[in-house]
Amino acid sequence: MYPLLKKYLSGDISITDEQFNAACNVFHLKTTKRNEVLVESGDISRYMYFVNKGCLRIFLLNTDGKESTRFLVPEGRFGTSFPSFILQEPSLAYVQSVGPSELLMINYDDFRRLTDFLPGWEKAYRNNLEQDYIDSIKRIESLITTSATERYALLMKDNSDLIKMLPTKIIADYLGISRETLSRLKKRV
Amino acid sequence: MYPLLKKYLSGDISITDEQFNAACNVFHLKTTKRNEVLVESGDISRYMYFVNKGCLRIFLLNTDGKESTRFLVPEGRFGTSFPSFILQEPSLAYVQSVGPSELLMINYDDFRRLTDFLPGWEKAYRNNLEQDYIDSIKRIESLITTSATERYALLMKDNSDLIKMLPTKIIADYLGISRETLSRLKKRV
Repeated sequence: MYPLLKKYLSGDISITDEQFNAACNVFHLKTTKRNEVLVESGDISRYMYFVNKGCLRIFLLNTDGKESTRFLVPEGRFGTSFPSFILQEPSLAYVQSVGPSELLMINYDDFRRLTDFLPGWEKAYRNNLEQDYIDSIKRIESLITTSATERYALLMKDNSDLIKMLPTKIIADYLGISRETLSRLKKRV
Repeated sequence: MYPLLKKYLSGDISITDEQFNAACNVFHLKTTKRNEVLVESGDISRYMYFVNKGCLRIFLLNTDGKESTRFLVPEGRFGTSFPSFILQEPSLAYVQSVGPSELLMINYDDFRRLTDFLPGWEKAYRNNLEQDYIDSIKRIESLITTSATERYALLMKDNSDLIKMLPTKIIADYLGISRETLSRLKKRV
């Protein structure tokens, strides 16, 4: 029923339809509208969201009250305000669905119990954590060490679907550049 | 012999001296000088380092050739250029021991095999990954949403030893402020 989720939860071992169905029982489908906010700053993030369709944006308000996009979560990945979800403490960040999206949400206790249904999840989760942590470090590194042109080229390579789907304002904010610079880059590439 | 390492590797289950000694065989002691560079940008990071004494600094050169401190690894934690180590690809970052340090180093294959010796390591590693990922996110968040005074107060609270141990230049760089601002903060707090 949800092939993207099945692929993600299986890790590198295959799981049976029965195992997957048992796991699916703890996920709930949520369809969201454009710009719908799922977690406000100050809330405790109660759910992890799997993006089945659409895109999530994790953003902060900086000291001047300006929005700053920390992460974009594309289709086929989990996302939420991670520190708040894992520590069950108030979130600094906001979680928002950028366009209308289809999310599969799972609460904290069920998320921790996923290993009961899924023999490969422990290892798959560890691999996904490593990958998410690496992505987070590479994002910091690229903001420090690369030019706007290189960052745009990298986003084109890794997530060209996101560029088509998202408003220019959000892409520019994610890349740490102005809308005018982004428009120039788009024409050039 | 290395109580900090034993605590870290045990996770939340206790391990026997035999299990710990078997694990210790794959760690090698390395003592470093002040400012010794362990990984250069462009190198593949072959080792994970456990800081038994001292402190590691992970830094980048930004587009202007200026150093930018990404992480500080205090005593009792693992650190390296994580993306390079896990993916075994060239590192963007440099890894340096700030003062003379005592490190316990383990190579990639042995790191992956640690679960053979240590029944609790799989879960402990996952917990540590979650914590490191959370620290990385919180570091981005604090650079965006907090003032220099709040960042200094947080570092004082979580890692007051580091402040005593490290040169002002590195602390200021880590906090994203000038040395002059840091001196003012130190006087005020």
